[in-house]
Amino acid sequence: MLIYWVTRTMFCYSNSDIQKMEKVFRLNLINCIGGFKSANLIGTQNASGQTNLAVFSSVTHIGSNPPLLGMITRPTDEVPRHTYQNIKDSGYYTINHIHSAITDKAHATSAKFDASISEFDACKLTPEYIDDFPAPFVQESRVKIGMRFKEEYHIKANGTIHVIGEIMAIYLPDGSVAEDGWINLNALDTATISGLNAYHKAEQIQRYAYARPQQPIQIIE
Amino acid sequence: MLIYWVTRTMFCYSNSDIQKMEKVFRLNLINCIGGFKSANLIGTQNASGQTNLAVFSSVTHIGSNPPLLGMITRPTDEVPRHTYQNIKDSGYYTINHIHSAITDKAHATSAKFDASISEFDACKLTPEYIDDFPAPFVQESRVKIGMRFKEEYHIKANGTIHVIGEIMAIYLPDGSVAEDGWINLNALDTATISGLNAYHKAEQIQRYAYARPQQPIQIIE
Repeated sequence: MLIYWVTRTMFCYSNSDIQKMEKVFRLNLINCIGGFKSANLIGTQNASGQTNLAVFSSVTHIGSNPPLLGMITRPTDEVPRHTYQNIKDSGYYTINHIHSAITDKAHATSAKFDASISEFDACKLTPEYIDDFPAPFVQESRVKIGMRFKEEYHIKANGTIHVIGEIMAIYLPDGSVAEDGWINLNALDTATISGLNAYHKAEQIQRYAYARPQQPIQIIE
Repeated sequence: MLIYWVTRTMFCYSNSDIQKMEKVFRLNLINCIGGFKSANLIGTQNASGQTNLAVFSSVTHIGSNPPLLGMITRPTDEVPRHTYQNIKDSGYYTINHIHSAITDKAHATSAKFDASISEFDACKLTPEYIDDFPAPFVQESRVKIGMRFKEEYHIKANGTIHVIGEIMAIYLPDGSVAEDGWINLNALDTATISGLNAYHKAEQIQRYAYARPQQPIQIIE
C-alpha cells in the first residue's frame, strides 16, 4: 500500500512514495503526470537503406527561427536506439503526425523489433520518399516534417538524450494553414498521447489573442 | 507570397521558405507543427515571497525513475525570465495542470507583467501553499506537482534553456489514479495546447497494451 494523505480532497504521492512504487505503476503515473503529449512517428534509415519507424511522444517546440524541434530518446532502450543510431549516422529523420485512423499501427511500432525488421513493413505503414529527402516519411500521415540533426544534450540525471533537429521541409495538405500561419490540428485529426499508451482526439476550447497586461483576453474566432 | 509546390495533394514549406516568412506567420506555423503540447502553469516565488505564474506548453516527460520533467524557457523573454530566475534562485517551482474552466486566466499569465506584479493577482488565480513546499501551487488546478530544480542545458542553436526538475510531490483528486498507475486526464479535464494560443479538450480514442512483435495490438478497456 502506498502512503498518502488527504489535503482538502486531494491526495499526495511524495518523492519517496514514487521511489518505492512498483515499476509499471510508476511508469504509468509519471508518464501521465506532465499532461498531454505530441503523437508522432519518427522515420529513419541506415546506410543500407533499411528503414525504421518509431512512435515518440516527446517531440517539443524549441524555437521558430531557426525552426527547431526537440525529442527525448533513450540510448539503452532497444527501439529508439535504432532511431537514434540512424539519426546520428545519416544526419536526417522525419517527424510524421499520428491521426486517429493509424493509432493502432503507430502504437505497434513500439514493440521491440529486431534491427533487421522495418516497422513500416511489420506495422503496415508505407514509407514515402519526397523530393530526395534522405529519410522515409509516412505516407499515411497528413503532416510530415523533414528534419536535419543539429545538436544533442546528454541528460546526466537519467542518461536520456535530448536530440535537437532543424526543420528542413514541412508537407501539409493544401488549405490547412490559415492566413496567419495557424494550423488547425483538429481538422487534420492530429492525435495526442497521454501516458505510455493512450491516444486521444482534441477538440478546441478556445483560441486567444496575444495577451497584454490590464486588458481583457480576446477570443480569436 | 510563399513559394510552395504540390506533392500529391500536399504543399511544402522548405527551410528557406520558413526563413523568409513574416515573423508572426512563422511563429504560428512552427509552434503548431510539432503537434499538441502539454498545458501547465508554472508557479514560483522570489526570496521576498513575491509570486510569479506563467503558462508553459513545453513541459515534457524525461524519465520515471528518478521522476523527471523538462521544460524549455527563454532567458531573454520577459515573462519566463521571472520564472527561470525564481527557479534558479529558489531551486523550487510548481507545475499545475490547466483545465477548461481556467484557460482564459492561464493564457492571461502570458502578458508581459512587470516583475513587481504577481500574475496570480492580475489573472485572478489563487496561490496555494501545501505541506511547506517552497513555491506556490495554483489552487484552481486539479493536478499539482512540486518540483526541485535538477539540471539545465543551454541550447546553442537558439539560446533557449532546457530546465530539468525532479518531482518532489504530486497532488491529485482522490480516486483519479487507476490500479495500474494510469491517470485519466480526460476525466480531470486537463487541457492541451496547440501553437501559441489555442486550448483544447481531449477525448480518448483508444488505450493499448504493451506492444510485442508479431502479436496483434490489444485494447485496454
